[in-house]
Amino acid sequence: MALRMKGVSYEYIEQDVLDKGELLLKYNPVHKKVPVLIHNGVPLCESQIIVQYIDEVWAGANGASILPADPYERATARFWAAYVDDKLFPAWLGILKATSQDERTEKVNKTLAVVAQLELALAQCSNGKAFFAGDSVGFLDLVVGCNLFWFEALRRMFGVVFVEEGKTPLLAAWAERFGESGAARDVVPDADRAVEFAKKLMARRGSAPAAN
Amino acid sequence: MALRMKGVSYEYIEQDVLDKGELLLKYNPVHKKVPVLIHNGVPLCESQIIVQYIDEVWAGANGASILPADPYERATARFWAAYVDDKLFPAWLGILKATSQDERTEKVNKTLAVVAQLELALAQCSNGKAFFAGDSVGFLDLVVGCNLFWFEALRRMFGVVFVEEGKTPLLAAWAERFGESGAARDVVPDADRAVEFAKKLMARRGSAPAAN
Repeated sequence: MALRMKGVSYEYIEQDVLDKGELLLKYNPVHKKVPVLIHNGVPLCESQIIVQYIDEVWAGANGASILPADPYERATARFWAAYVDDKLFPAWLGILKATSQDERTEKVNKTLAVVAQLELALAQCSNGKAFFAGDSVGFLDLVVGCNLFWFEALRRMFGVVFVEEGKTPLLAAWAERFGESGAARDVVPDADRAVEFAKKLMARRGSAPAAN
Repeated sequence: MALRMKGVSYEYIEQDVLDKGELLLKYNPVHKKVPVLIHNGVPLCESQIIVQYIDEVWAGANGASILPADPYERATARFWAAYVDDKLFPAWLGILKATSQDERTEKVNKTLAVVAQLELALAQCSNGKAFFAGDSVGFLDLVVGCNLFWFEALRRMFGVVFVEEGKTPLLAAWAERFGESGAARDVVPDADRAVEFAKKLMARRGSAPAAN
C-alpha cells in the first residue's frame, strides 16, 4: 500500500510463511518474517519500519507524506501504530492459536477491548476528518487498515464482528472509506485467502476447532 | 539522555511505578508506564517515540541528529531498536519475574542469546566506528545503552555477566565508551537503585529468590 501511495512499481514475491523459502531466510535471518522489502539489493524488515523507509526515500508523485509533517502528530501516529502491533495483532492472532474455547473467548474479548480503544483513538486523532491524521490515508490508516481483511476472515470463521456501526461507528465508517481508497483498493488481500491460511495455521498448531 | 544531547533543560519528576501516581495515570492512561515527556502541556509516551520526537523538534546546539540522516541507516537503527524492545527487555525482565530457578536459567540463556545477536549487530552497524551508527552517540546507542545499568544490577543480584570482553568484545568496549559519553555520564541511573527496585518488584510478584 505504501509503495502504491508513492507510485513506485515493484515486484511482489509470494512467500509461504508455513514453509519458509531460502529468500526469506536469507533476507530476514533475525525474525524470518514477512514482509521484507528488497531495495538496491539490501533488505528492509518489519512492516512499520519499511513504511517509514518508503516515506523517507520516495517523495511520491504529489509529494504527499505518509507520516504527518508535525512532530507531535508523527509521535501520535507512531504511538497508536505501536499499540496495534503490540496489542491488536497478538490479540486476534491468539483467537486462531487458542487451544481451548475458553482461551478463544478470552482472546475475542481482548480484541474487542483493543478495538474499542482504537475507536477512541480515531475520534481523538481524526478530529472529524476522514482518516486518522487528516483528509487522506496516512501511516496509522495503513497500520490499522491491514488488519481489516483478517477481521473479515475471523468473522467468517468464528462469527465475531469487531468493527460495526453499532459498536464502533467511527471505525466502521472509516473502514468503508479506507477500503475504497486508492491505497487499499485492489491491493488488500482477499479474506478468502486469509481464511485458507488461518485454517492451515490452526491445523499446524493443533488449535481448538471453530465452534460454529 | 536525548534531551541532554539536544541541550534542552527539563524538570525530572520521579514516579514510583509500583505505586503509580495521578500524574502518570492522567498522562499515559493507555499503558500507565514511564517515561512520559510532557511538552507544551501534552504528553508523549513510549521511550523510542519520545526520542524520535525530541530529535524532530530540537535541532540541538550543534545541529546533530540522534537518528542517522540516511534512510537505510535510519531503518537499520529502528530495526535493532525494535529488537531490543521486543527481545532484550522482556528477556532480562523475565529473569527478575521468574518464579522458579529453571525459568530463571531459561531467561538468562535467552538474554545471553539476544546479547550475542546484538554483538553481531554492532559489528555490522558500526563498521569499526566508536558507536552504533558512527563516531558519536545516536539512536541505537541510547536504546541499547539504557539497558546497561540493569545488566549491572543483574550481575550483582544473580552473578550473571551479559557484556564482557571474553564473550562480547565489541559491546564491552562500546559500553565503556558509552558510559563515558556526554549523553550518558551523570544521567544513567545508579545500579544500586536498580537493585533496590528489582528486589521490591520480585517481592511484589512472588518471584523465586536469587540462588546465590
